[in-house]
Amino acid sequence: MKVSRRSQVPPFAVMQVLAAANARRAAGEPVISLCAGQPTAGAPAPVREAARQALADGDLGYTEAVGTPALRLAIAEHYGRWYGVDVDPARVAVTTGSSGAFLLAFLAAFEPGDRVLLARPGYPAYRNILVSLGVEVVEVACGPESRYQPTTAHLTEAYYAGGLDGVVLASPANPTGTMVDADGLAAIADWCAEYDVRLVSDEIYHGITYGEGAQQQATAARYGDAGAVVVSSFSKYWAMTGWRLGWLVLPPDLVPAVDALAGNLALCPPALAQHAALAALTPEAYAECDALVAGYAATRELLLRRLPELGWRVAPPDGAFYLYADVGTDDSVAWCERLLADTGVALTPGTDFDPVDGHRWVRLSFAASTPLVDEAVTRIAAWRR
Amino acid sequence: MKVSRRSQVPPFAVMQVLAAANARRAAGEPVISLCAGQPTAGAPAPVREAARQALADGDLGYTEAVGTPALRLAIAEHYGRWYGVDVDPARVAVTTGSSGAFLLAFLAAFEPGDRVLLARPGYPAYRNILVSLGVEVVEVACGPESRYQPTTAHLTEAYYAGGLDGVVLASPANPTGTMVDADGLAAIADWCAEYDVRLVSDEIYHGITYGEGAQQQATAARYGDAGAVVVSSFSKYWAMTGWRLGWLVLPPDLVPAVDALAGNLALCPPALAQHAALAALTPEAYAECDALVAGYAATRELLLRRLPELGWRVAPPDGAFYLYADVGTDDSVAWCERLLADTGVALTPGTDFDPVDGHRWVRLSFAASTPLVDEAVTRIAAWRR
Repeated sequence: MKVSRRSQVPPFAVMQVLAAANARRAAGEPVISLCAGQPTAGAPAPVREAARQALADGDLGYTEAVGTPALRLAIAEHYGRWYGVDVDPARVAVTTGSSGAFLLAFLAAFEPGDRVLLARPGYPAYRNILVSLGVEVVEVACGPESRYQPTTAHLTEAYYAGGLDGVVLASPANPTGTMVDADGLAAIADWCAEYDVRLVSDEIYHGITYGEGAQQQATAARYGDAGAVVVSSFSKYWAMTGWRLGWLVLPPDLVPAVDALAGNLALCPPALAQHAALAALTPEAYAECDALVAGYAATRELLLRRLPELGWRVAPPDGAFYLYADVGTDDSVAWCERLLADTGVALTPGTDFDPVDGHRWVRLSFAASTPLVDEAVTRIAAWRR
Repeated sequence: MKVSRRSQVPPFAVMQVLAAANARRAAGEPVISLCAGQPTAGAPAPVREAARQALADGDLGYTEAVGTPALRLAIAEHYGRWYGVDVDPARVAVTTGSSGAFLLAFLAAFEPGDRVLLARPGYPAYRNILVSLGVEVVEVACGPESRYQPTTAHLTEAYYAGGLDGVVLASPANPTGTMVDADGLAAIADWCAEYDVRLVSDEIYHGITYGEGAQQQATAARYGDAGAVVVSSFSKYWAMTGWRLGWLVLPPDLVPAVDALAGNLALCPPALAQHAALAALTPEAYAECDALVAGYAATRELLLRRLPELGWRVAPPDGAFYLYADVGTDDSVAWCERLLADTGVALTPGTDFDPVDGHRWVRLSFAASTPLVDEAVTRIAAWRR
């Protein structure tokens, strides 16, 4: 029987590495897994306590399709606290992870045949979701000269080359961790407003920034009246990946469409996670997460210090918890498989993030403990000699 | 800025009733809410205990995209236990509610422009998800003569009228609660195999059946080799609506496509719910759920006994927990609003389930306590006099 063409998206190469890592672990051999994009710490204590309470209270039925009013309000207030931006809670839609947010935003904003610009390297699900929805992806190679981020020059070129309906901007980006500063974001938002192009700003790594980056964290929620969409999540800063809870800050014109789509496509985000996430937006939880970020910062310092031993070319990350490195191979999938087999260290091949040049690159996630990452570096350094 | 045409799906009329009911409750006035399609009991005790344990253990990171191997195996075994059907766990994909299951199945099976048959009346999200994905919906009016279910005659007629790529069958159905028996399902599955049409069988109300219906519960999982897709869920029988956990039993040809799509569109279903749901497929949990079903059965008997007082025309439900009734109005939305304002009883207008004839019908969900439903009947009967 027929299988749709639009479902023929490439599988993630990281899944092969994960399967091999799991097989190795099942065989009793040690594995240092630095391939998954998730903190190992788990949710902050206040969140887990609130979840226990919600379980005991027992009201875990459907919530409103775009989330409980209490959580939407708390998220809106979070924008005042972190960015000094006034957000109407009516613009906040709670979603099933940022995955659910992207699906709703892309469906609401783009028609089949529309053209949407993505930076390459970038998060592969952007491309795969868009393609499955019939949207044409315009991939733009972004190199070290723009810190792997698109610029208004890229946008203008794509606009005149074949038309443009949208752009996805990720800051901090996956896999590079590079950021667009407040001026850069303002320039892109202004450009999008002028050219009537929808800006979708992926801000799921906000809160995890280093050095000067921390002061430069800027949100596109400021540009809602110009049509910008913000996608965010409790997964990364709050270490709540498996809870599947994210959100959108919508421009007013997309609110009714997302509201109607959310009820039909998802009914509602997970109820327990919603009740628990209220405790994520409290001083106690912020403090616990900031301590995690301090740990990532220490690990990042260690990595940058030991880079010469690895011999990798990297762009030092401004945020997130990834090191994206040119490792000088021609087949990063095979390279990662060999590294795992020889040393027990699991990394992600760059082919997941860049179908053109990714065969030379790998991504290392350092959201693990500093000693574990230190040990991984020691093993990799010994292995390459 | 542009908003996509495909996002212009109709909002649920029930949301207006819910908002009015919430406003009434907030004003301190009593409400008997029989409009939402969910049990009020909450998850079985073993599930809640397993959730507490999973929260304490703390490993709530991403799982495999199509669910943990343990849960996929347990679901496969459930098919042996309930139906005597041997299901390969590799065919089971755990999803974020049946909503996530429909999205993945529709994307994998249908191209834009494909034609998919739905019974009218029916669950509105089928239509709205399909339309948002560019699929053409072929709605077929199904009346009491076929117990509101499509037949092979309907399928043949649609096939020759304009071509047909798929059919969604729901048994027990929402809003009518009617079922297709084993012979009827076999006839439709055979027809679909012969005409190369994809059968999607919505079985989310399985386990909640009455009278003869209980013996007739048949699953399309039996027809996987013929291309049939099963959608099911922990929401209804297990009373776990807000947990957002469902599953697909896939035909072998759709397994790779759904696997790749799931990782991109959802990453994974909620981890806590997956760990907890293992305890739903145990004798203790089945016993607790069967006791709930016995309660729905008693309420159903009461409703059917008191029908003459209501003066409604209904098809007695074989399963689920709905009564779909022709109440002899020309505007069921206004009728429901008046009923709520005058009596505090909230029902769902039929316009959500049938855009053509629904203005005469309402849906009553009796997944509440028997005394509450009894009181609602008393109020409605007094109101109509």
